[in-house]
Amino acid sequence: MAKQIMSKSENYSQWYNDIVKKAGLADNSAVRGCMVIKPLGYGIWEKMRDQLDKMFKETGHENAYFPLFIPKSFLSKEADHVEGFAKECAVITHHRLMNNPDGSGVVVDPDAKLTEELIVRPTSETIIWNTYRDWIKSYRDLPLLINQWANVVRWEMRTRPFLRTTEFLWQEGHTAHASEQEAIKEAQMIHELYASFCRDYIAMPVIKGAKTAHERFAGAIETYTIEALMQDGKALQAGTSHFLGQNFAKAFDVKYLTKENKEEFVWATSWGVTTRMVGAMVMTHSDDDGLIIPPKLAPNQVVIIPIPKPNTEIDELVEKLGKEMKDKGISFKYDNNDNKRPGFKFADHEMKGTPVRLGIGMRDLEKGQVEIARRDTKEKMQIPVEGVVDYIANLLEEIQNNLLKKATDYQQNNIRKADNFEDFKSILENHGGFISAHWDGTTETEKRIKELTKASIRCIQLDNEQEAGQCVLTGNPSSQRVLFAKAY
Amino acid sequence: MAKQIMSKSENYSQWYNDIVKKAGLADNSAVRGCMVIKPLGYGIWEKMRDQLDKMFKETGHENAYFPLFIPKSFLSKEADHVEGFAKECAVITHHRLMNNPDGSGVVVDPDAKLTEELIVRPTSETIIWNTYRDWIKSYRDLPLLINQWANVVRWEMRTRPFLRTTEFLWQEGHTAHASEQEAIKEAQMIHELYASFCRDYIAMPVIKGAKTAHERFAGAIETYTIEALMQDGKALQAGTSHFLGQNFAKAFDVKYLTKENKEEFVWATSWGVTTRMVGAMVMTHSDDDGLIIPPKLAPNQVVIIPIPKPNTEIDELVEKLGKEMKDKGISFKYDNNDNKRPGFKFADHEMKGTPVRLGIGMRDLEKGQVEIARRDTKEKMQIPVEGVVDYIANLLEEIQNNLLKKATDYQQNNIRKADNFEDFKSILENHGGFISAHWDGTTETEKRIKELTKASIRCIQLDNEQEAGQCVLTGNPSSQRVLFAKAY
Repeated sequence: MAKQIMSKSENYSQWYNDIVKKAGLADNSAVRGCMVIKPLGYGIWEKMRDQLDKMFKETGHENAYFPLFIPKSFLSKEADHVEGFAKECAVITHHRLMNNPDGSGVVVDPDAKLTEELIVRPTSETIIWNTYRDWIKSYRDLPLLINQWANVVRWEMRTRPFLRTTEFLWQEGHTAHASEQEAIKEAQMIHELYASFCRDYIAMPVIKGAKTAHERFAGAIETYTIEALMQDGKALQAGTSHFLGQNFAKAFDVKYLTKENKEEFVWATSWGVTTRMVGAMVMTHSDDDGLIIPPKLAPNQVVIIPIPKPNTEIDELVEKLGKEMKDKGISFKYDNNDNKRPGFKFADHEMKGTPVRLGIGMRDLEKGQVEIARRDTKEKMQIPVEGVVDYIANLLEEIQNNLLKKATDYQQNNIRKADNFEDFKSILENHGGFISAHWDGTTETEKRIKELTKASIRCIQLDNEQEAGQCVLTGNPSSQRVLFAKAY
Repeated sequence: MAKQIMSKSENYSQWYNDIVKKAGLADNSAVRGCMVIKPLGYGIWEKMRDQLDKMFKETGHENAYFPLFIPKSFLSKEADHVEGFAKECAVITHHRLMNNPDGSGVVVDPDAKLTEELIVRPTSETIIWNTYRDWIKSYRDLPLLINQWANVVRWEMRTRPFLRTTEFLWQEGHTAHASEQEAIKEAQMIHELYASFCRDYIAMPVIKGAKTAHERFAGAIETYTIEALMQDGKALQAGTSHFLGQNFAKAFDVKYLTKENKEEFVWATSWGVTTRMVGAMVMTHSDDDGLIIPPKLAPNQVVIIPIPKPNTEIDELVEKLGKEMKDKGISFKYDNNDNKRPGFKFADHEMKGTPVRLGIGMRDLEKGQVEIARRDTKEKMQIPVEGVVDYIANLLEEIQNNLLKKATDYQQNNIRKADNFEDFKSILENHGGFISAHWDGTTETEKRIKELTKASIRCIQLDNEQEAGQCVLTGNPSSQRVLFAKAY
């Protein structure tokens, strides 16, 4: 099979689009900016979702589901919030179609105009806090720890599969607390949970930090972010956790009675990760032969491919190995489709990123062995049938670790210090990656640097060293470095 | 705690609404016809979803995700389909809000009008078959067995939590086949899968049948339905599976090359069940003390309630029992909240339908026993601590079986034959339930009977006996009985 995709070094953007398409992760749809998530892409998202859901439940959260629609007036109740979302809202104005009197098809029925327009949720703080007003009366009702798995819509002008789409899938946590401190702790705990999920499952190291005021979520007091580095040297915001203060409680009048019988506004957090993480996974690990899926997120960790047409001997061996794999929690697919040749299947699973390939040939079988190929390094090994499942179990772990190590090395090697603006621009141009530089703390400078270089402040690292210095653009005094990068 | 809900016999409808509210299944929302699904309601839906998802995957289906929005013109492509859905569509006309020049808040930005309106999906046949055109080229691409978990919107005039809401959650399967026979077989297989899910998990027997032409899905050749009977004698359609023929393939021009290299239109099915099943579960089993959840769908199968304030002895016992329960796959909650008295917790979990309550008192403990109460029959038993988890495991099975038996007896006792219209009306008035009666096969008669009695034809049973007779309304000849009922 001929190489079907663009080389990463030649055109990273096209390489990414090619993988999404050829590996069968997603397709464009007939609706502008919306994608169709195909079974492989959705299977990876399911793995992410199930693991995150487990982690949320283990930390005391429960799932619920709130309406898709938000009354227009709700958005306006928190000033920053509406400012942030008004320009990208899908607006429902009517609730009925009718036959066009001219016989040409269906048209909107003008008599079915809504008295108040509805917005397709871009995020759910407003509808949820409007509901929390009824749920929260006393300190006994707190903390309220709710998560929702849902679709949301933001009318984006430039879209790319998984990374930025008009509709996307996500989870949004919305918690309510009796104290400021407890809410901040929650937002930080989730921030840490996201970071460990990325490391332990996506095999993707992230930098943890806080956003600048300018980059904060619309309505937040503090936004914690995890920032990953893609193979082209651009950063990608992979998830955010917000401390919302009492902003939404005040906007929706959500108060509780303290133990001392005093009325107080409730403290809030919200936090989310999206199908964007699938795109981040693709961009972190894949190569010029196609997708590479970390074993912990692979819908099928192993593909078994018979070299001759499947026969009884092979079928029996596969049944035996399959049973062993199932017992060990290893997922696999037996690709015994007669219509396709082994060579096609090899290339297909390489493109689809299946972590381990197990090939069964008759000659190998006579020697009591099978061929194992790992997707990450593309090494092939002849392994005795006896004990091969144990071998695979170890190999899957090794692949997961290897991917993380590779990505971590890349990230570590791509954080550079710049102490003047010439260096700053030169690093951006020659290397990309993160640039650690002093900044004078003003939004004005932050915006100006972005205009001049396209690099934005990704975050102020949580464990940041305090160090006196001069702003890389203005030379004004600065007490700490922040991380800049061009970003998705 | 005083009884908080209406009695079932006095006002069934109010009883249902009370349970939904007081058990914490769902709340009304600020958006007309949309509900908020609370953690308990969503937890039950998750159990249903996970089990169905497993069954779909075991039968070869994969999940994918298609856009929320459907271009208006797509709906018109299948004539019956648009006829069926045009009147209940949420229509998106604009993609941006702006500040009202008069300073009064946000308004729709007239410059952001879409060139073609988008419909929030009421079902996804059109957008999916528009995509399948690219996915299906040859017989090698068939069968295509896709399922989607999603939210959909139908602008209903009269809504009730779970049973009929403007937005609801569901799964929709959409499969493509090379032959008519294979597609029919698929639709029937799913029909059977739904029925066994209802029986084995919801403990709800259903009657399997086909819909009349008048009651078919908009665009289907045949609609298979499962019909359950609620405790007030009204039927509830719990799921449908459609054989769509080549209607959507023709509307969206989806053809495939046969092995013989001939071009043919593809054959289709679609099938779905929704959050309505949560409502069906409530109405099938609950009583005047609140919700009853079949153990297989209970987020917590057991609640452990300490009678005195929790102490070390009790905590240690709970830890030991908890570990045993976890090993046996029994889910439980240790309700050790200090702010609430045991009596409150007893009543609360009765209302919430937790299948088994395990109470731990100090006096019982001295005797080496605990108190077990089952929610379905409300029996209480003193059981030795030694072996209590085995006892609970058996009890959960017994409760599940008991609920199914009770519901099955009720259903069996409420299918009555009527051979003339007086009997028909009298049965409806005095008993409700299903009426097995002859019908002349015309839509006219079907509609007339509904106008006169509010009873509709629920289905033509699959294993229907052929029997000559006379239509219960017109006296015209009929070859078989069909099942009538008033329905939700």
